[in-house]
Formats: sequence, structure tokens, C-alpha cells
Amino acid sequence: MQDGKEKTDAEGTPGVGIVKFHDFTFGMTAETALHLDCGRYLKNVVIRYETYGTLSEKRDNAILVEHALTGDAHLAGRYSPEDKKPGWWDDVVGKGRPFDTDKYFIVCSNIIGGCSGSTGPRSTDPDTGNPYNMSFPVITIGDMVRAQKALMEHLGISKWLAVAGGSMGGMLALQWAVDYPDLMHGILAIATSPRNSPQNIAFNWVGREAIMTDPGFQDGNYERQPERGLATARMLAHITYLSDESMRRKFGRRLQDSTEYSFEFDKDFAVESYMEHQGSRFVERFDANSYLYITRAIDYFDISNSSGGDLTKALKDVKCPFLVVSFTSDWLFPAYQSRELVHSLLKNGNDVTYCNIESSYGHDAFLLETDALGNLMLNFLTNLYSEVTEP
Amino acid sequence: MQDGKEKTDAEGTPGVGIVKFHDFTFGMTAETALHLDCGRYLKNVVIRYETYGTLSEKRDNAILVEHALTGDAHLAGRYSPEDKKPGWWDDVVGKGRPFDTDKYFIVCSNIIGGCSGSTGPRSTDPDTGNPYNMSFPVITIGDMVRAQKALMEHLGISKWLAVAGGSMGGMLALQWAVDYPDLMHGILAIATSPRNSPQNIAFNWVGREAIMTDPGFQDGNYERQPERGLATARMLAHITYLSDESMRRKFGRRLQDSTEYSFEFDKDFAVESYMEHQGSRFVERFDANSYLYITRAIDYFDISNSSGGDLTKALKDVKCPFLVVSFTSDWLFPAYQSRELVHSLLKNGNDVTYCNIESSYGHDAFLLETDALGNLMLNFLTNLYSEVTEP
Repeated sequence: MQDGKEKTDAEGTPGVGIVKFHDFTFGMTAETALHLDCGRYLKNVVIRYETYGTLSEKRDNAILVEHALTGDAHLAGRYSPEDKKPGWWDDVVGKGRPFDTDKYFIVCSNIIGGCSGSTGPRSTDPDTGNPYNMSFPVITIGDMVRAQKALMEHLGISKWLAVAGGSMGGMLALQWAVDYPDLMHGILAIATSPRNSPQNIAFNWVGREAIMTDPGFQDGNYERQPERGLATARMLAHITYLSDESMRRKFGRRLQDSTEYSFEFDKDFAVESYMEHQGSRFVERFDANSYLYITRAIDYFDISNSSGGDLTKALKDVKCPFLVVSFTSDWLFPAYQSRELVHSLLKNGNDVTYCNIESSYGHDAFLLETDALGNLMLNFLTNLYSEVTEP
Repeated sequence: MQDGKEKTDAEGTPGVGIVKFHDFTFGMTAETALHLDCGRYLKNVVIRYETYGTLSEKRDNAILVEHALTGDAHLAGRYSPEDKKPGWWDDVVGKGRPFDTDKYFIVCSNIIGGCSGSTGPRSTDPDTGNPYNMSFPVITIGDMVRAQKALMEHLGISKWLAVAGGSMGGMLALQWAVDYPDLMHGILAIATSPRNSPQNIAFNWVGREAIMTDPGFQDGNYERQPERGLATARMLAHITYLSDESMRRKFGRRLQDSTEYSFEFDKDFAVESYMEHQGSRFVERFDANSYLYITRAIDYFDISNSSGGDLTKALKDVKCPFLVVSFTSDWLFPAYQSRELVHSLLKNGNDVTYCNIESSYGHDAFLLETDALGNLMLNFLTNLYSEVTEP
């Protein structure tokens, strides 16, 4: 969800510079494989990740940052000086920034099911030597977190200073809190929800239908992407990342290349042109099968599944402080969903900082309102770090 | 948009009983043809329409009711005693109902571009003997109204008592007001907007992409509908007719047929099942090419196009009273759009009744909140009728 704006380096403070990614592989046997909620397991699981900053001797300064639906491990920095775009949340990572690389060791990993280095539906099934495609198991947010737990052990980290994420990334942060309540000192849940709403389930259903209707989809066994279907799914999702107001401000009813209607079905309006651009950029970088699997995982996400829908009960073992942030114009994960989370946390006695940031940017606000959000995150992390490191 | 609920006959007051439709054909020559905003014209134009009640001797009691995107001329009643479903707004038409057939002569006609009897893309092009399909001209709301003007003349009506419509039907009512300001005594604009928003333009774009991506579409020359693509477009639109709240109330995260996730991509959730049902019902009754053409007409709709975006100026010649109604949870045509219309009308000195009806049903509220809406319409029409008929 992070490409709704053009990225530039933040000014004033230095970023993390040139970075590189790492691949960690685990589960070479059925016993050590990643066992999934569906009952199946994945062998030879690759986790692509990046780190920024230095792990302290006490190994107490590690922060896990979770990416959104179409994100990846490349949180910050550039792979080379020629690299045109920095990582997806570059402006909050670096010296003096909220995720301060002078103080913290930041970890970001591509989720399983993704298409940016970690094991996903386009990976080779070690049992057949062919891509999984639609034989890839249907995974959950819990499975993604379980894979990250293996990475945590590999990195020799016994407790995160914090787990942070926006949008689907916030769902992973909440899943971490519920599944491993003793393994973090704090949670940052940004523009997210304790459960995916029926409206979002329906949008995801429509997006998947658009992909599977494309004749190029071929039951997931495409060589060339089902471009038009995938672009359609992306365009639909993109509408949900913006807001009615931001679209009026950005495009209005402006025509793109003319002063008159074309009386054709090709794009006339600036907003159509923008949509098409978003769609065609997306198919260059994101895999259709991954889109199916990850949206399904989001649909399945309800942190209170294990407690019969009782959110307070689901969160009862989580004792750490929370930062919860919503945005006023976000209608994908509206503020009431964050408030429901906050309400349950307060009932359980958690220390909660909550802010509903005024913004017209819709869901994308979590990537655009980096000043307001950055200050909240910086203060929250600074306090956490003091409590953890100062006796 | 009118099939969001199961229709039953309203209780307490009698409906209009058994009805039949009529076809009116005009424009047999290039001179008398329907000249369109795109510069082309349509010959042999068929308008399917229905009427209820009796035209008075003075011909002063005729009301034109406009249907929404996927509606038709069958406003009320049944075609036979065995007919399972009455017309799409049956519960507000009949003796004692807002559109009182004891007092008024009600006319409803299928728009051109439609697929329910009036000339549309699936009609035969008289110049070729083949279906127009995508050679059908791109039409506008103004073109639809101009065709209805021919029907008005055919019926011998020189001035409507009122022109009424909801959703796209409200756009037609506004277009009537601006294009023929002297030809009605009143306008009822329900759950509509003076211009289609960029968010809705983007949704329509995505819907059309879904249809055109279906291999069955065949550039519009299909014999069998592009079912999956059309269903996808419908499902997307259907989400926009509901509200986040109504979907939570109606479906929540309830599973349809099981207590556990399937870990498959078929429908698990009740909301998915409902969407699929809406999609498959829709393809049985609505044509894909019509869907393309009508959504394009909606996109092109901006009543202030002719006045450089100045809504007040666009409405300056309209002197009649208006009833404007919006619904609090309607996010397809949010209340601020109705208020913008009301504001311009008041600046022009029009007599305006405006109500933002509290409802959780989203856009569909205009078809579901028939008590609250019905009372407003009944009073507005009663007053209009008194003013017109009493000296």
C-alpha cells in the first residue's frame, strides 16, 4: 500500500544510505518445517530481510517493522547510489528519525506468501521442482508471524524492543502480541484493525475475481502475469487507500489531455489516468498469485478468532505498552476499529497511547503524515527504550 | 441499484396491480433522429415505458419517475398474477402512496443505452442490420433526457407536475431541470449528486475494466455475456450501495456453511456468498455493454459542465421547488453533495425542502427507507399538486 505517493529522501536528517538484503532459510525437513494453520507445512522456507543499525551487546534494542500488503523487506535506504527509489518507509528510519539507527537495530522481513524474496506461491516447491502457484497453501497472518519467529531466533534476539506495523503490518504486530506476548516490550499498531471488516473482505473478493477472470491467469500457472486483471485489482485497492476528499483535491473532475470529453471508453479523466498508471506500475513489481494469497490471509485475520470474538479476552496475556494510531479519513481501517482495540487494551490495564490523526489522505495517511505520526512513534520508542535500558 | 433487497408488495395500501409496458418509436430519418452530445445521432429510437394512473383532462398531473443505473421502466405492479417480483419502487406507487395513482399519472421509461426495451448497444443498428455493440455512440445523461422529451411530446404532456429520481435517476431529474426549466413544476432529487465524483469515476473505471478483461467480452461482440467480468463489476458496485455499518450488521465475519475456514479461495464468508449471489443474479438480467455505456454517461455527468463548473449559474433558470434528500450513511453520493446542490438552489431563490435521513443502509437507503422518504415525497407532491390545480 506504500506506493501511493512518490518517495523522496527525507530532508534534514540523514537516511540509512546504501543497504543490502539477506536471505535466511530454514525448515529443511518435515520436522523443522514451518507448520501452518491450515494443517500443511512449508519446507525450505526463505525469509528475505534487511537490518539497519547495530544490535546492542545486550541484544535489547531490536525493533521489528512489518510491511503492508504489497510491501517488502526494503524498509529504508537504497541498494546502490543509482537506485531511484529508497525503501518504502525511508523517511522514518535513520539517525534522529523515529526508528533511530543510532539507537536501535531495525529488522524488516518480507512476509511468506510475498513475492519479494521470501517463500511465496511463485517459489519452487522442493517436492516437485516446479513453482507452487495455486498449490501453495493458504496461509494466515499467524503463519507469517511464525516464520518471523524463526528469523528472530536466527538473529539471536530473545525479545523485541518493539514490533511495529501499519495496515496489514499492524495486523502482524497484533498477531505477534497475542501469539508471543512475552517477546516484545511494546507494540505500534498503525492504521490497522483487530479484524478485517466484511466490507474489506468483499473488496478483496472482487479484487481476486478480477485477477482470476483474466484469461492470462491460467489457474495461477501463468508465465506472463495476468496483467489486466492484476492491474484492476490494484486500482480497486488503490481507491480504498485514498479518500473521497483527497481524490477531489488531487483530481477533481479534471480531464487529462483535453478540454472535451472523448466520447470513447479510453481514459478521459485525470483520475482514470492515475488509476491506470498505478495499475500498470503495480504489475511490474508484484505477483498476481501473491496478491491472492495475501488478501486471503488478511480476510482470515481476526485477532479474536481464538477467543470466540472476545477482543479483550484475546488480548488478556499482552502486558506491554501500545501505541495505536488511526487517521480521520481512513475508511479502509476506520478509527472506530482502532478505538475498539484501545478499549479492550484499557480494560486489560495496558498502557495505551492512542491518537486519531487529522488527515484527508485516507488510509495512505500512515505513509504520508510522517511528521505527526513520526513524533508519536519517536516518543513512544524513546520511552520504551529508556524503560528497558535504564535500570 | 434497486435489487439490494428482496421486494415484496407494500402492506396496507393497494399497489397498481397488473400492468403492461408500451414501446414508442421515433426518429426514423436523419432529420428526426435523436441528436446526441457526441455529435452522432440515433435513428429508430425505441423508448419502453409504463404508466400508472390516469392523465387528467388538463394534462397537469403527470409525473416522470427516473430509474437508477440498472433499473428499467417497470416501476410498479406486476405483469401477471404469477409474476414473482413487482416493479423496482412498487411500495411508493399506488392509491394513497406518495406517487398516488388516484391523483397522478405516473410515467417511467427505460433510458436509452439500457437493455430493458429501450434502444441500447444490444439493439439492431438500422444502418447495418447488426447489433450496435461497441459501435453504439457514447451517450450522456443529457441524451437520455432528450429522448424522454420525445416521449413527453408523444404522450401529449406539455409540462410535468414533477420529475423525480434517485441515484442516477436524480441526475436525470437535475438534467431535466437545467435543460427544460419551464417543463416541470417540481423536482425530486434523491440520493444523488450534481456531478459524479472522482472516486465514483474511479470505481466505474475499475468495473468496466473487470468486464473488458473477461475473455468472453470479445470487444462487446459476445453472444453469451462476459458473465464473470460483469458479475465482478456488479459486486464492486454493490459494495458501494451498502455501508460499512450495514455490512457489519448484516454479515459481520460470519462464515456461510462452516464453523472453520476452508483454506481455499472459494467463498467462506457470508458476505462473499452474498456478493457472488448478487453478481450471478445480475448477469441474468443486465447487459454488459449497457453497463459500460451507462456508467460512462454517469461519469460524464456534471450539471455545471455548461457553466464552467459554477453550479449556481447552471441552475439559474430553474425556478421550481425542489425536494432534495440524502442519507447519512450514503458514501456513493454523500450528503455534502446534496448540500452543495441545496446551497446553489437557495442562492438562486428556489423553494427547497432538504432532508438528510438518518440511515445505516448506505446508498440503498433510498429504496429501503420508504417510510421516511415516502412521507417527504408525499407531502412535497401534495403541495405541488395543490398549487398547480387550485386556482
